[in-house]
Amino acid sequence: MGSTKVYREVPDPDSGSVLRVPQRRVGLSNGTHFDLYDTSGPYTDDDADIDVHAGLAPARADWIAAREPVGGAVTQLAYAKAGTITPEMRFIAAREGLDPEFVRSEVAIGRAVIPANRCHPESEPMIIGKNFLVKINANIGNSAVTSSVAEEVEKMVWATRWGADTVMDLSTGKRIHETRERILRNSPVPIGTVPIYQALEKVDGDPAKLSWEVYRDTVIEQAEQGVDYMTVHAGVLLRYVPLTARRTTGIVSRGGSIMAAWCLAHHKESFLYTHYEELCEILRAYDITFSLGDGLRPGSIADANDEAQFAELRTLGELTHIARAHDVQVMIEGPGHVPMHKIAENVRLEEELCGEAPFYTLGPLTTDIAPGYDHITSAIGAAQIGWNGTAMLCYVTPKEHLGLPNRDDVKTGVITYKLAAHAADLAKGHPKAQEWDDALSQARFEFRWQDQFNLALDPETAQAYHDETLPAEPAKTAHFCSMCGPKFCSMKITQDVRRFAEENGLSTVEAIEQGMAEKSAEFADQGKRVYLPVAD
Amino acid sequence: MGSTKVYREVPDPDSGSVLRVPQRRVGLSNGTHFDLYDTSGPYTDDDADIDVHAGLAPARADWIAAREPVGGAVTQLAYAKAGTITPEMRFIAAREGLDPEFVRSEVAIGRAVIPANRCHPESEPMIIGKNFLVKINANIGNSAVTSSVAEEVEKMVWATRWGADTVMDLSTGKRIHETRERILRNSPVPIGTVPIYQALEKVDGDPAKLSWEVYRDTVIEQAEQGVDYMTVHAGVLLRYVPLTARRTTGIVSRGGSIMAAWCLAHHKESFLYTHYEELCEILRAYDITFSLGDGLRPGSIADANDEAQFAELRTLGELTHIARAHDVQVMIEGPGHVPMHKIAENVRLEEELCGEAPFYTLGPLTTDIAPGYDHITSAIGAAQIGWNGTAMLCYVTPKEHLGLPNRDDVKTGVITYKLAAHAADLAKGHPKAQEWDDALSQARFEFRWQDQFNLALDPETAQAYHDETLPAEPAKTAHFCSMCGPKFCSMKITQDVRRFAEENGLSTVEAIEQGMAEKSAEFADQGKRVYLPVAD
Repeated sequence: MGSTKVYREVPDPDSGSVLRVPQRRVGLSNGTHFDLYDTSGPYTDDDADIDVHAGLAPARADWIAAREPVGGAVTQLAYAKAGTITPEMRFIAAREGLDPEFVRSEVAIGRAVIPANRCHPESEPMIIGKNFLVKINANIGNSAVTSSVAEEVEKMVWATRWGADTVMDLSTGKRIHETRERILRNSPVPIGTVPIYQALEKVDGDPAKLSWEVYRDTVIEQAEQGVDYMTVHAGVLLRYVPLTARRTTGIVSRGGSIMAAWCLAHHKESFLYTHYEELCEILRAYDITFSLGDGLRPGSIADANDEAQFAELRTLGELTHIARAHDVQVMIEGPGHVPMHKIAENVRLEEELCGEAPFYTLGPLTTDIAPGYDHITSAIGAAQIGWNGTAMLCYVTPKEHLGLPNRDDVKTGVITYKLAAHAADLAKGHPKAQEWDDALSQARFEFRWQDQFNLALDPETAQAYHDETLPAEPAKTAHFCSMCGPKFCSMKITQDVRRFAEENGLSTVEAIEQGMAEKSAEFADQGKRVYLPVAD
Repeated sequence: MGSTKVYREVPDPDSGSVLRVPQRRVGLSNGTHFDLYDTSGPYTDDDADIDVHAGLAPARADWIAAREPVGGAVTQLAYAKAGTITPEMRFIAAREGLDPEFVRSEVAIGRAVIPANRCHPESEPMIIGKNFLVKINANIGNSAVTSSVAEEVEKMVWATRWGADTVMDLSTGKRIHETRERILRNSPVPIGTVPIYQALEKVDGDPAKLSWEVYRDTVIEQAEQGVDYMTVHAGVLLRYVPLTARRTTGIVSRGGSIMAAWCLAHHKESFLYTHYEELCEILRAYDITFSLGDGLRPGSIADANDEAQFAELRTLGELTHIARAHDVQVMIEGPGHVPMHKIAENVRLEEELCGEAPFYTLGPLTTDIAPGYDHITSAIGAAQIGWNGTAMLCYVTPKEHLGLPNRDDVKTGVITYKLAAHAADLAKGHPKAQEWDDALSQARFEFRWQDQFNLALDPETAQAYHDETLPAEPAKTAHFCSMCGPKFCSMKITQDVRRFAEENGLSTVEAIEQGMAEKSAEFADQGKRVYLPVAD
C-alpha cells in the first residue's frame, strides 16, 4: 500500500552481470520518496508473472554454475576466506548500504553467515551478522492439525510480504516433502528446517527408533531440495540430560527432547554428536548453514541461564569451530525465556564460546505470566538482546504456548519483530536506521497523514485505526486528529508559533530570543530565584 | 475468571481498626491457590452491592477524620517526616508484603508517594516508588469526539479490572466536571488530571486568555472533587521555548504547547512557575500529589534527550525541592520517544536532579515507525525504563498517534503495560515477582491447562486462543497441545523420562548418572575428543 517495487542496478565486475537489488519505494506527498529494505520478492513486483507451480526464476543459477570450488568447497565461507567477493556478497553490500569487502571479511571470520543452498537459486541473497541490520525469522509449517500445502506456501509469501528475512518450515504432518518443495521453489528468502522432525515421522514418531542413517538420509533429501539452514541439536549430550531433571519446565525444545529420549533409550551419546563431521561434509557440499540448536534452552524464567543451558552452549562452541574447519557456516540458536537482567550474559557467553558466530534467539520472553501476549513479552527481550548483538530474532506469535498461528497471528508476529529489530538497529546506531523514524516523524509533524500511513510498518492498520474515529477524507489533511481535537493539538500550536515568527520576518528562534534578552536580564536581576513575586 | 476476591485482615494498632487488604485469589486444580495484587476494587467482590449513582463506600473517611495536622499539614509526606505510620502506609505495607516502617521511610525521603486526596476517601491506598512494585496508569477521558459520562466511568472500572493502578481523566469535552465527579465517586484507584485542560475550556480554547486566576480556581474545583494527583507543566519556561524550534516534532505535550503559547503571547514567564508556591499551598491542603509534567518531552526518536528536554528537567528538580519544603508529595513525568541506548540516561538524570522523586514515564516508544503498534514499541521502552528505576508507567494503546482508544484498546494497553511492569519487577529482583511466573510455568509443565489460563494476565484470551485449535473439553487435560501434537510434545517426553526413572525406583538424576559413570569414563579415555569414532 502506497509503495512500489524498484530495483537498484549494481554492476558486478567479476561476473560481468548486473545485480538487481530490490527495494520498496514509498512515494511521499511532498514530492520526495523513501526506499526501504524489501524481503517480499517478485510477489510485490507488478511486472513479474507469478506461477506457483513453476516457482520463481532461479536468479542465482548462473552464479552457482560459474563457481569454481576452493579447497574442494563451494561455500560462501570458503570463498570469503580465499578473499573472493561473491555476487551474493556484492548483492548484500548494496542491499545493506555497505562495502562488499566488509561483507566478505565478516563472513570470512564467521561473524556473519549467508544462508544460500546451491539448490535454492530462487533466493535473494541476505546476510545474518551483528554488524548488519538485525534480521527476523518467521516459523510456518503444518502440524498434526491438518493444513494444506497451498496454505503453507501462502503463509511464507504472507510472512515475507511483511518483512520476514527467513522462514523456517517446521512441518511435521502429512505431505511434508511436498510442502517443503513448494515452499522452496517459491521462496525469495532462505528457508530453514529441523530435519529431526521429518526423521521422526519416518520412524513412526518413536524417538528410540531414530538412527544416524535415517537422519542422514533425511538431511540429504532436504539438502537436495534446497534448504538453506538446518537446526541441529548436536549439543544435547547424554551427560547433560540429568541437569534438566530438577528444572521447572524440563526440556522444552522438541528436537532437544527427542534427542534426550534417544540418548536415554540407547544409553549412547547422541548420533548427531558422534557423526558430526560426516554431517559437516554433507552441509559443506550444498553450502547449507548450521543453526546449532539449543535443545536445552530454558522454557521458563525459573530455568534461565542454568547449568544445563550453558553446558550445551559450551558444546555448541566446540562444534562451531569444527564446522568452520570444514568451511561450513554456523549460527547459534539461543533462548527462550530469560528475565531482562539475565539477557546480556547470554550474548556475552555465546560470543566468547562460539567465536562470535551469529546468535539467533527465540525472543526471549521476559516473563511467563502473559500467554496470549507472548509476542509482546518476547519482543521486549528480543529488542534488548538484538541491541546486545544478536543477529537474528525468531518471531513469537500471540498463539505461542496455546495453539497454531493463523494468518493474522503470522502478520502480528512479523510486524512485532520488525519493530523490535528496528529498535535494536537504532540502539546499535546503524547508520541508516534512524532515517526511517525521521521520515515518519516529519510526516507526522507536518500532518501528512497519508505519508505517515505509507511509511508505517503496517500501513493498512495505521490508516484503519485513524479512519475509525475520523473517516472523512478531509481528515487526511486536517491539522489535528481525533486524539486532542483542533483546540488541543500541540503540534498545531507549535506550528502556529513558528508561523507567527516567520510572518514577522524572523526565525522563531530569533523572534523569541530577541524578546528574551530583557526577560533573561530581568531574571538575572532577581538573582535567579526559582520563583518570582506575583506580577499579574 | 477462575479467581475470587478475598481480603487480608490486618489490625492497625494505632487506629484500632482492622484494615481489609484486597487480593485476587486464583484457585488451582492441585488444591493450592495463588493470591495476586488486586486493583479492581469492590466491583469484583460478589458481596459488595454497587450503586454507580451513590458511589463506593468511603473506606478512608474515618482515618481522614481522625487525623491531626502536623506542622499545619495533613499530607502523607508530613506524617512520614514526623515518624507517623498512617493507616494508608500500613495498608500499603500489607498490600506489597513489606514492613510499614519501610513504607514510611520511603515516603519521608520523597522516594515514594501515596496519591490520596482527603476528598477521595473511596480510594484503596497504593504507593508509587522505585522500591515497590512497578505501577501502571491508564488514561481515559472524552474529547472533542463525544463520549458519555457513563462510558468514561465504565472505562475506569474496566481499566482497573485488568490492573490499572491509577487512572488519569483527560476529558476535554462536554460535561467535564460531571464526568470527573462520577469517576471519582466510583474509583477504587487514585485519579489524576491535567487541570490546564479544563482551564482552557473555560477560556474558549484560547491559550492567550488563560490566567493564574482561572487556573487556580480550576485546581481548587478539582481538588474539592478529590483528584489525587495533578499534572502541572510548571517547567515550561519562556526561555526554553526557543530550544524546541529546530526539533523534528517541536512540542508534543498538550499542556506544554498551551503554556508555551501563553508565554509567547504575553511574553511573560509561565504563571504556573510564578505562582508555584501558592499552588503548593493548595495541593498541601488536600494532600494532592504533584505530577510535574514534561511539557517539552521528545515526540520523536530524533528529539530524544535534547537540550529542551533536559533544561526543563533541571527546573522540575528545583520545583521538586520547593514542593517538598511545603510537605507536598511529588513525582516527575518522563518521555515519550527514546531509543533504547538513551533510556538509562533519563532515569539517572531524573534521580540526580529531582532527589529520586518517583519517575512516571509515558512508554517511552523505542521507535517511530510502527503507528498502530505503539503499545508494543513503547512496552519495550517501558519494561527497560522500569527496570532502570521508573516507578510508574503510563500506558500507550494501539491507537496512539491515530485515534481515541475504545474499550478493547484500553484492555490491550493495560495488559501490555502490566506485563512490561512485571518484567521490570523480575529484573529488579522484587521478592514476590517470580512466584507468579513459577506458578504459571509449573501449571504449564504439568498440563494443568485451566490453571495456566486462570493464572494468566488475561485468562479469557489465553483460553480462547487455546480453544481455537483444540476446543474439546478433553484437551483441557491433554498431555500435549495443538502446537506440537502428541508425538512431538517436549514436555511430555521429559515427563516420560522422569516417570521411567521413578518406575525404576530411582530419581531421574540417579538413574541417569548411575549409567553415566561408565559412559563418562569412556569419554575420558578418548581424551575427551569432541567427536567419537563411528560406533553404530
